Amino acid sequence: MSLTDEEIAAVCSEPDPATAGTHLQHTMYRVKDAKVSLDFYTRVLGMQLLKRLHLQEAKVSLYLLGFEDAADIPSDPKERTRWCFGRRAVVELAHKWGTESDPKFTGYCSGNDPASNGYGHIALHVTDLKAACERFERLGVEFVVKPGTGLVKGIAFIKDPDGYWIEILTADGVADTFPEVD
Amino acid sequence: MSLTDEEIAAVCSEPDPATAGTHLQHTMYRVKDAKVSLDFYTRVLGMQLLKRLHLQEAKVSLYLLGFEDAADIPSDPKERTRWCFGRRAVVELAHKWGTESDPKFTGYCSGNDPASNGYGHIALHVTDLKAACERFERLGVEFVVKPGTGLVKGIAFIKDPDGYWIEILTADGVADTFPEVD
Repeated sequence: MSLTDEEIAAVCSEPDPATAGTHLQHTMYRVKDAKVSLDFYTRVLGMQLLKRLHLQEAKVSLYLLGFEDAADIPSDPKERTRWCFGRRAVVELAHKWGTESDPKFTGYCSGNDPASNGYGHIALHVTDLKAACERFERLGVEFVVKPGTGLVKGIAFIKDPDGYWIEILTADGVADTFPEVD
Repeated sequence: MSLTDEEIAAVCSEPDPATAGTHLQHTMYRVKDAKVSLDFYTRVLGMQLLKRLHLQEAKVSLYLLGFEDAADIPSDPKERTRWCFGRRAVVELAHKWGTESDPKFTGYCSGNDPASNGYGHIALHVTDLKAACERFERLGVEFVVKPGTGLVKGIAFIKDPDGYWIEILTADGVADTFPEVD
């Protein structure tokens, strides 16, 4: 069941002052083909590539993307790393070299299949849900849930090239849809 | 292989003006026991519970947490929903009612097991990596990678109660560790 007010109060703590200054820096997931993903996250979603890092030993490249102003990205490589990893709400796409051309590689779990349930999605806040979804349609993006057809009316879900779900929402849409619980 | 500058330039687009105002609002994953998770995310990590939403039909509760000032959280329930879903970098923990006491429920996939690879982790930016990790040790938190022992020296990984990985980093630590690539 959902927790009662008393249960919530009993398990939630005030932040320890030792955690001051902590923030959510990035969410990481693995992608099959860096070229296909970089195209999708920049052209379709409107993110900027903030930084790339190559782990030679692990044969993995990390591509960090976010909704930032290009003019804010430092040109000095090390300063760029420092700046990128100090930002909030960045997506880190991890690409293991070779998966894009390996016929034996069958793709990653999105986290939403019953057999490998766990991770769900990232959510993007947009200024206009209808306009955003019409644009995704025009761009040929696959929908998991079209606006107005799911359990929650004011949102939609699309898929990225690896099948990861991306929720599309507006704060107003969510506020207008859900009952008035705290 | 990692992509060349030319390959990057060929696949990355400038943001479409239609995407202006979009930002990364939340990352969602499923948890077995809402009480255990709310304790961990508030007491151990220092987050605030920003909002809870109950999907009666799906028998799921959503707990939205973030690093925010409690004084900024609106008291009016609907305004609170609107405010919460307009914030950046929120974590949405989804709790299917009953999993916490179902003996047949074996737990969620973290996304980092070879058999269900895909999702990786969220990353928290902290002000002091050593102090943060010493505190996690004192609180009995399980480490995936202790600071200084992994492939990347300036970071650590801990586990949340469901086994999801949480990276702990500082921007300086990452900038000092990685080679100077753009």
